[in-house]
Amino acid sequence: MAYAYWKSGKHHEKAVFDLFFRKNPFQGEFTIFAGLEEVLTFLRNFSYSESDIEYLRVTMADTVEDEFFEYLSSISTTDVTLYAVDEGKVVFPRVPLMILEGPLIVVQLLETTLLNLVNYASLIATNAARYRMAAGRKIQLLEFGLRRAQGPDGGLSASKYAYIGGFDGTSNVLAGKLYNIPVKGTHAHSYISSYSSLAELQIETLQHKESGEVMNLKDRSLVWRELLSRELNILQSEASDGELAAYISFAIAFPTGFVALVDTYDVLKVYQGSVGQDILPRENNNNNNNNYYYYLSGLLNFCAVAMGLNDLGYRALGIRIDSGDLAYLSCVARTTFVTVAEKFNVEWLEHVQIVASNDINEETIISLNEQGHKIDCFGIGTHLVTCQRQPALGCVFKLVEINGEAKIKLSQDVEKVTCPGKKTVYRLYGEDGHALIDLMHRTQEAAPECGSRVLCRHPFQESKRAYVSPAQVESLHKLYWDEGKIQQKLPELTEIRDRVSSSLQTLRQDHKRNLNPTPYKVGVTDDLYNFLHDLWLQNAPIGELF
Amino acid sequence: MAYAYWKSGKHHEKAVFDLFFRKNPFQGEFTIFAGLEEVLTFLRNFSYSESDIEYLRVTMADTVEDEFFEYLSSISTTDVTLYAVDEGKVVFPRVPLMILEGPLIVVQLLETTLLNLVNYASLIATNAARYRMAAGRKIQLLEFGLRRAQGPDGGLSASKYAYIGGFDGTSNVLAGKLYNIPVKGTHAHSYISSYSSLAELQIETLQHKESGEVMNLKDRSLVWRELLSRELNILQSEASDGELAAYISFAIAFPTGFVALVDTYDVLKVYQGSVGQDILPRENNNNNNNNYYYYLSGLLNFCAVAMGLNDLGYRALGIRIDSGDLAYLSCVARTTFVTVAEKFNVEWLEHVQIVASNDINEETIISLNEQGHKIDCFGIGTHLVTCQRQPALGCVFKLVEINGEAKIKLSQDVEKVTCPGKKTVYRLYGEDGHALIDLMHRTQEAAPECGSRVLCRHPFQESKRAYVSPAQVESLHKLYWDEGKIQQKLPELTEIRDRVSSSLQTLRQDHKRNLNPTPYKVGVTDDLYNFLHDLWLQNAPIGELF
Repeated sequence: MAYAYWKSGKHHEKAVFDLFFRKNPFQGEFTIFAGLEEVLTFLRNFSYSESDIEYLRVTMADTVEDEFFEYLSSISTTDVTLYAVDEGKVVFPRVPLMILEGPLIVVQLLETTLLNLVNYASLIATNAARYRMAAGRKIQLLEFGLRRAQGPDGGLSASKYAYIGGFDGTSNVLAGKLYNIPVKGTHAHSYISSYSSLAELQIETLQHKESGEVMNLKDRSLVWRELLSRELNILQSEASDGELAAYISFAIAFPTGFVALVDTYDVLKVYQGSVGQDILPRENNNNNNNNYYYYLSGLLNFCAVAMGLNDLGYRALGIRIDSGDLAYLSCVARTTFVTVAEKFNVEWLEHVQIVASNDINEETIISLNEQGHKIDCFGIGTHLVTCQRQPALGCVFKLVEINGEAKIKLSQDVEKVTCPGKKTVYRLYGEDGHALIDLMHRTQEAAPECGSRVLCRHPFQESKRAYVSPAQVESLHKLYWDEGKIQQKLPELTEIRDRVSSSLQTLRQDHKRNLNPTPYKVGVTDDLYNFLHDLWLQNAPIGELF
Repeated sequence: MAYAYWKSGKHHEKAVFDLFFRKNPFQGEFTIFAGLEEVLTFLRNFSYSESDIEYLRVTMADTVEDEFFEYLSSISTTDVTLYAVDEGKVVFPRVPLMILEGPLIVVQLLETTLLNLVNYASLIATNAARYRMAAGRKIQLLEFGLRRAQGPDGGLSASKYAYIGGFDGTSNVLAGKLYNIPVKGTHAHSYISSYSSLAELQIETLQHKESGEVMNLKDRSLVWRELLSRELNILQSEASDGELAAYISFAIAFPTGFVALVDTYDVLKVYQGSVGQDILPRENNNNNNNNYYYYLSGLLNFCAVAMGLNDLGYRALGIRIDSGDLAYLSCVARTTFVTVAEKFNVEWLEHVQIVASNDINEETIISLNEQGHKIDCFGIGTHLVTCQRQPALGCVFKLVEINGEAKIKLSQDVEKVTCPGKKTVYRLYGEDGHALIDLMHRTQEAAPECGSRVLCRHPFQESKRAYVSPAQVESLHKLYWDEGKIQQKLPELTEIRDRVSSSLQTLRQDHKRNLNPTPYKVGVTDDLYNFLHDLWLQNAPIGELF
């Protein structure tokens, strides 16, 4: 295509392209724009290397002139101008996320990479922001997805944009190193199963946190297990010695960071009425005559080591549950902690963190909230990073103007008709600070003024019109790339992360809710409406029958 | 976790891990194993750089000893051994794709990367192989997915593994350059809409292919459009001059490679009985009294330029349809080509390629086959590269042996119980060359012999047993990494691609069909069955109630 542009002498023509999407992902009504910094880095580095040219020479037809390859090796983005929405802002269908102006051939060559960089970044950031809204502000969210991500770079991008979208950390250490994202993780089941017995413990001791006195954590943990077993009416035979050994070794390695995975060995024990303490009866138990009780056997070992650590002046951090009924099990765990904390006067134990993982998605979080749970932290992998519910955002890159002449792409599907010409977009806010509408203007039109009413039209439905008097008017795009240079100070990742949060706050709750959210309005001025429809008629040939 | 292993002196213990999945993707009953070469490259390069160590020093707790970081900077995969299935082979749940042996800490540190490299590669290769089976051998399949892929590297991996799975080419030029995959593509809608009129054509001429005589393609195309318009009873006013100009310029650039996108301007015209030639009446037309006819307006322009090229000794390659009813439109297009070819005695035009794109997936192809179509080539993007139907393969990495002692991971969900110990796996084939079962052995057991019956057991269902007399026995794993070196000659991409095809041929059709395929059998020997269940009982503590 680039060669055909060059061959027909069109490569110097000045083109304007809009990059936008047509539909918000995840059946929602908003999207977080992300990927801008990577786009700018790409623009800065864009060129064809000698080996690229050599490959193209070999691959393309023999008739392609040397001059084309010379031209190709000389191109850069110096003459390209990029207007973009700030990274991390909430955006909507049909509004350009980026507007690119420049020589037709250069801007066209950027298309696929720009789409690639924006599509996945925005999708992940949006997905993460939705998880954050579902979980609420107080819950810690960790990205655990690298092993299931679509390629190594898919995993890195996921960590970065999940953080921007509102996650608190990642288990991807390279992402931590490259992007300065907090790294968090726990051990895997294999750590537990690598121990068979207490005899395997090569180190049993640890220095007391304050006194420095060397004390035996294994002996203390065993004493506590005996005591707790009686207190909680759980048989010690239920708790694996290998698991206890693994916990003790992990606590010795990380006395201030001890988090235990509690479901390696047959996770759930069921007790009948006469046995075990009534920890928390299952409310929806079908058979109310039999009192069944449930218990996580790893909890006993965890509590034993946590109390052992307590003797040495340390506080355990918490547990991770990776299977079963997370709502119920987290309640069981919390009740256990409260029971032990009260009985032995160890107030902090009441509040240790309960981390839940295992195929969690937005719906799981919403469902857990409805059931009630005691989870403090979710570790989320596959569904977050692959965006299982919708693994691609459908951004497109459409020519809207060439040599000053507006262009329209028609389609039988009205949703696919493009909005022609270079446009300016304003976000209009109401008195209460909420965004009302994104209004697309032709560039020559005056900006809307605060307090003055402006006619907003639906781009395709003639009768849908409304006057809006904005309390605040925001120009959505900034000049980000011009004359071969980045034109704005680029924010830190944490600033983008804050922008996601504050931008979402400008959005009314009904646009953000999970079920049947209200579409946010995107409109055009009267001038642009008429321009669009005139051009449509000009370009749609008159047929015989409709 | 690595630090805890080191701290507790376990890092030198010799561990065996299995990498496997539990469920085939896409509701199918087979998976293509891919990613091995990248795994081997990773093993060869595995080490911690100075900056990695520096980052870890800053990030980890102050209590972590210098000796640990020294140890970490010294580790390599020299002591690691990797057995793997050949890349491109068909594989099944629970059978290890790779078996890793080595120092516990090293093998554990490899886990996430290995899973990442195998999961997506195998998923894409399997997806591509399924598309290939749905499309049949004769249809060309092109990967067009970069713009929607999950990150730049996700796009590259997609191109590579789609090719392995049976695709014929990619539109990703970098993938072409790096992996020597054929690159194929067509122009985009923006190429068409960059032209408004014939006056914009800066070059109108082209040399005759044989005689070298410079001739005017524009004039000839216009003459042909006039003629064809009458022949096909289509008004010339229906065909955009901008579109024609774009086609002519593209044909001049690529006289031997002219493929035209035919749906930029209002794609489908509907004619009533009295107007237009009966190109192909829609069979399922609800109202048979009115004869409605359908026509792609871009077809007229394409035929005009194709006939113009013919005058100059060239042959157009074909068209691309990117919207609408692909089955029906492809039939309309083919009928048009046949009509024109016969009328003007241009036999080759009958057979030009019809490329279809627009959100195609496996189900679309199957549905198009059922409806009947004349498509020769599919360009497939989003669904292929993101594996929309199931965007992650769930490979896991489980410890099965440590210091010679077999390990089992228990779970309430029987499907999640691991198969303990280091194993040897054989694929048993029947007389007709079809694979019958993958049989897992304990390593000390003798291999099955051709012609001798061997007892195969279901790993968990006691009563499911069968004798099999294999006509052929294949040991599934080869030693791929040992003593810090790759131990096998690695195949070219095309060899792996051939292996996918031949490996799938060993599979009975009922395992491969799209709807309700029969599960392929994976079994264990009697010895392994007993070993597994004894270990299970040893590790599951006796509770109070089941």
